[in-house]
Amino acid sequence: MAAAERMVVIGGDATGMSAASQARRLKKPEELEIVAFERGHFASFSACGIPYWVGGDVTGRDNLIARTPEEHRARSIDLRMHTEVTELDVPGQRVRVTEHEDGGPGTQRWVGYDQLVLATGARPVRPPLPGIEAPGVYGVQTLDDGQALIDALEKNEDLAGEGAPGGGDGVRRAVVVGAGYIGVEMAEAFVNRGYQVTVIDRGQQPMSTLDPDMGALVYDAMCAMGIETVRNASVTRILTDARGRAAGVATDDGEYPADVVVLGLGVRPETELAAAAGLPLGESGGLLTDLAMRVRDHGNIWSGGDCVEVLNLVSGRPQHVPLGTHANKHGQIIGANIGGDYATFPGIVGTAVSKVCDLEIARTGLLERQAAAVGLQFETVVIESTSRAGYYPGTKPMHVKMIAERRSGRVLGVQIVGRENAGKRVDIAAVALHAGMTAEQMTGLDLGYAPPFSPVWDPVLVAARKASAAVRAARPN
Amino acid sequence: MAAAERMVVIGGDATGMSAASQARRLKKPEELEIVAFERGHFASFSACGIPYWVGGDVTGRDNLIARTPEEHRARSIDLRMHTEVTELDVPGQRVRVTEHEDGGPGTQRWVGYDQLVLATGARPVRPPLPGIEAPGVYGVQTLDDGQALIDALEKNEDLAGEGAPGGGDGVRRAVVVGAGYIGVEMAEAFVNRGYQVTVIDRGQQPMSTLDPDMGALVYDAMCAMGIETVRNASVTRILTDARGRAAGVATDDGEYPADVVVLGLGVRPETELAAAAGLPLGESGGLLTDLAMRVRDHGNIWSGGDCVEVLNLVSGRPQHVPLGTHANKHGQIIGANIGGDYATFPGIVGTAVSKVCDLEIARTGLLERQAAAVGLQFETVVIESTSRAGYYPGTKPMHVKMIAERRSGRVLGVQIVGRENAGKRVDIAAVALHAGMTAEQMTGLDLGYAPPFSPVWDPVLVAARKASAAVRAARPN
Repeated sequence: MAAAERMVVIGGDATGMSAASQARRLKKPEELEIVAFERGHFASFSACGIPYWVGGDVTGRDNLIARTPEEHRARSIDLRMHTEVTELDVPGQRVRVTEHEDGGPGTQRWVGYDQLVLATGARPVRPPLPGIEAPGVYGVQTLDDGQALIDALEKNEDLAGEGAPGGGDGVRRAVVVGAGYIGVEMAEAFVNRGYQVTVIDRGQQPMSTLDPDMGALVYDAMCAMGIETVRNASVTRILTDARGRAAGVATDDGEYPADVVVLGLGVRPETELAAAAGLPLGESGGLLTDLAMRVRDHGNIWSGGDCVEVLNLVSGRPQHVPLGTHANKHGQIIGANIGGDYATFPGIVGTAVSKVCDLEIARTGLLERQAAAVGLQFETVVIESTSRAGYYPGTKPMHVKMIAERRSGRVLGVQIVGRENAGKRVDIAAVALHAGMTAEQMTGLDLGYAPPFSPVWDPVLVAARKASAAVRAARPN
Repeated sequence: MAAAERMVVIGGDATGMSAASQARRLKKPEELEIVAFERGHFASFSACGIPYWVGGDVTGRDNLIARTPEEHRARSIDLRMHTEVTELDVPGQRVRVTEHEDGGPGTQRWVGYDQLVLATGARPVRPPLPGIEAPGVYGVQTLDDGQALIDALEKNEDLAGEGAPGGGDGVRRAVVVGAGYIGVEMAEAFVNRGYQVTVIDRGQQPMSTLDPDMGALVYDAMCAMGIETVRNASVTRILTDARGRAAGVATDDGEYPADVVVLGLGVRPETELAAAAGLPLGESGGLLTDLAMRVRDHGNIWSGGDCVEVLNLVSGRPQHVPLGTHANKHGQIIGANIGGDYATFPGIVGTAVSKVCDLEIARTGLLERQAAAVGLQFETVVIESTSRAGYYPGTKPMHVKMIAERRSGRVLGVQIVGRENAGKRVDIAAVALHAGMTAEQMTGLDLGYAPPFSPVWDPVLVAARKASAAVRAARPN
């Protein structure tokens, strides 16, 4: 018996499978057939967990798989692995799929849809440098990437060291290109594996998702951890050895030999299929959707996750923010709407948190340059406080930067660099940004206090007090 | 040269000395003379830190002193220690003080004021039980209390054990009366000192600042830590030994021998002076103030901290909430206003965080019974999630309870019981309460996510999703 409607999902990861699962909760198989196509070997995996798998904190690939294909199928979601969608026919309401199950060229067929979910995600940036395709250059986007890297590392670590490409002194070396989230997380992973790590970045400071003054704190901390951090560097080529394997990285300033090279240069929306079908894309190449996550002007095509742009509620601009937390929300919202319920995604405020060894790094809202780019004028303050009461054991220094709009005093952004218990404090500011609070209003927030948890003035409150004072001091101008 | 105005502060702790310091920042000594009277031996100390000092996490009393009397005096704040204010003459704008510097009966005099700050704090509850005044019964309100307790513990721990009042088996025993914040923090302190600990409480569960279902989680955890926790118990008397020293506690159900007895039964506003002067008091006995922290209908008398009631923004009712974080804010606001600046205290949302060993306990907003008491109807949900991604090492279970108003879905309260990284998550809900958010709105919050910090759905978001669904499900009724 055919179902009344068919939902087709392209991409079997966070957004796609969350959408499928949520729709299935709301509609029975006889009401809604759900077919999902995934071109890779894995579905529903945590890409964010790959650095921790490589670093050894997470043991085993299966820990990163939230739900197996069999589990999806048991819930009447027809998930087809190794199946690529090669064409989208919007007027015909159908997609062309190629099944690679047998490893051969694959059989092609058209599959019609009533509701379509584009959850094609993002692809890592791989600049066209000489040697970039050499064996020994790794990405960390998929579980296959992670497995290939781990296999290579384990093989390398089994070698005695002499004769290894990294220099023959028995020291294993890793070069990470890019000092963003993936870059610093991979640096930590290699430190945990006992590698000497070099991170090479073109920016003035690591973590270009922070302002340079806060990025400088990350730089200092990484240096203190023994991570060589090269700034303002342009990678010119990948060094290769006699066998053609990657043996390091060359920049305009020098050469950095390595046993392994990892690229952490960020990702771009994977929207070729959508572009070829004429769907609306934003400046970043991400799909544009409405608040219900419908592709704009297309009533039965939905999209979310790493292939869409989302509204930044602070800047008022659409932006590409590839984070698992948004992707999961989008999937849940799409599934609810297809399932006949109602849900919307209001937008993001730009929150992100990461760590490199014991250094916690967090931000929300806009950076100075982002605020200036949309015409905002502002005051900034940076304060230093501690994670716990000053007298409590284990208290650690933390820096908080706050950016508040001139005149209105509205908080525009917060950045935090500290140690344990620092990073998640950014959530205080994230909620305040959602609520449009001023720095002055934030000074009155009733936050949890006890000596093991916070100084009597939480560092975020200290920043708010100082930002509020800065706005008042600047007001007459 | 006399100053143009005199500010008199009664009470040299958080509120009083913050007010003095802030006023001094804004006004020079020739504009404003500042005199502060403290009847005890210490000013500007962290009472919240006393359990950690007793438990050995904090070494030395001086670590709990934020600023010494000498440091205050060096900033032209005339802080008089061992000086008690015994009478307040409002029409005459003066206070009567008794100086006990020499340990004698003290000399009395009147001191006039232009601005008066009542920062008299709170006094611990000591029920009139037989034996309550026996040596060996300790409070933990002041540094003197803490020092007396530590002196007794060190003396006791120097003894061989046999013949000690606790039972003569070499095991040192402590009984803590009351299982609120101070009670559980003192239980931890005694565990850290190697005592066998019994906590006796009259409530159905420990932590009556939580709903009973969440308090039950605390009970289970305390039992698992080896802390004997006696519920629904009425203490009838303090047991004493032949020398008249405290030797345990008797309840209506049994006797609990102990080497040391600590009272953690909460505090009441210390407002006898204000009451005698006819100042307005609320139901709890706390002073009533306006939003600028002026005592109601008294233009030049200010009050804050543990001796006032504050507005609970969720219930709309005044409430006595003796916490250092409010006391410090009040002092800063009073000092700003006296100094000619402008600041207000909007009210509290009822946030508190604590821990007992590795168990973190937090709450904000209203409990079920508090919501019902002000006429609110609501749905409640409790979810179990984890502090980090499920696959990340060190991830720990945490429970989140959310209470949301029927129909509107407005969040009314959140309670959290978990392990590391659980407690401060309550701040997310605290800010949402300040902003009047609904559970549905909270589901869209852009919170920090990375595997070491949170599951991809933060536990607070999971609770919000479930609460939102509960409100929708209940709507037709």
